[in-house]
Amino acid sequence: MPYMFISTQIRLENGPTNVGDEFSDPVLMNYLGARKTTMLGNNFSEYHVDDPPRLVLDKLEKIGFRVVSMTGVGQTLVWCLHKEME
Amino acid sequence: MPYMFISTQIRLENGPTNVGDEFSDPVLMNYLGARKTTMLGNNFSEYHVDDPPRLVLDKLEKIGFRVVSMTGVGQTLVWCLHKEME
Amino acid sequence: MPYMFISTQIRLENGPTNVGDEFSDPVLMNYLGARKTTMLGNNFSEYHVDDPPRLVLDKLEKIGFRVVSMTGVGQTLVWCLHKEME
Amino acid sequence: MPYMFISTQIRLENGPTNVGDEFSDPVLMNYLGARKTTMLGNNFSEYHVDDPPRLVLDKLEKIGFRVVSMTGVGQTLVWCLHKEME
Amino acid sequence: MPYMFISTQIRLENGPTNVGDEFSDPVLMNYLGARKTTMLGNNFSEYHVDDPPRLVLDKLEKIGFRVVSMTGVGQTLVWCLHKEME
Repeated sequence: MPYMFISTQIRLENGPTNVGDEFSDPVLMNYLGARKTTMLGNNFSEYHVDDPPRLVLDKLEKIGFRVVSMTGVGQTLVWCLHKEME
Repeated sequence: MPYMFISTQIRLENGPTNVGDEFSDPVLMNYLGARKTTMLGNNFSEYHVDDPPRLVLDKLEKIGFRVVSMTGVGQTLVWCLHKEME
Repeated sequence: MPYMFISTQIRLENGPTNVGDEFSDPVLMNYLGARKTTMLGNNFSEYHVDDPPRLVLDKLEKIGFRVVSMTGVGQTLVWCLHKEME
Repeated sequence: MPYMFISTQIRLENGPTNVGDEFSDPVLMNYLGARKTTMLGNNFSEYHVDDPPRLVLDKLEKIGFRVVSMTGVGQTLVWCLHKEME
Repeated sequence: MPYMFISTQIRLENGPTNVGDEFSDPVLMNYLGARKTTMLGNNFSEYHVDDPPRLVLDKLEKIGFRVVSMTGVGQTLVWCLHKEME
């Protein structure tokens, strides 16, 4: 699972930060301290942490993920990260 | 065909993911398990998969595609991928 | 002319694709099969091709252009390409 | 803390520039001459400088931060920077 | 001053292109043939050229600036450039 997305709504200075979808690696989600939730009206689950995105990126850097690209779509900021697999 | 685009609407945690246009390589589309459809009112075809974009990126990484850039346009998130040809 | 822009409106699966402005290299425009047009009400010309942007990127790759960045602005998707000059 | 964000509202030619959140490194914030403020109605703090973003990037370059990606979200421009840790 | 921004409004095929703020290097602004103006109602100055952004990037390439990232924010397209300092 070399690719990972994190995203946050509206403001980048605070959380929560969305760190995963229902197929995300549970070990990785546990490392970030994420909890799995299903938002009202959604038919899929997500993983969230309370940390702002900058702290999440710093944690992910320690296990090898690097930011490839960042973008805004609507009110959401998204980061695309990649980890080299050998 | 060194370049490839994938895109998704509104949410990045779930599919479907658009993985090709009518000129896309059928072997590549078959590898991703994509089906060809023509949306009502469109005069061109597209290829879709049910996987969320993260899983598609992970599959594409295995055959040499890397994310170059990601952007949002309207309600759509787009990834531009590139594969080194020798 | 190491930099080049291509852009498309609304959908990335089909053309036309805008590939140049009035100062673009005619040899490069000819290689892409582009035609020069002046849109009604504009005081500047543009070059278009009917190909979708993915096919244009594949053609440009063959002569040394690489995608540096991609972005959406309004309803338009823009790719910024660069070619190493020696 | 290898990652850092800076952001500015509407115009990129002038400040203020937002350079940190409440967990930002105080030594780094002091190097930039940033002041900590809590905006009316927010339950979190931010760090600001009066410099335009270009001058902030030049200062951050001197201590090893490089721009990884830049994006617009709503009326805000955001830069994501990274510093190699050894 | 390793970082530089250029931006253009609405269309990427023609100028004017904004190339600097009031703290920009006068030698660099002179190289680009830019003129300093203060827009009505603004309390800061800007530098403009009549060239479209592609020609500005080509000129900046000649003196060592490379595009790091490009983004759209509102109706504006922005390029972030960087020059290696030794």
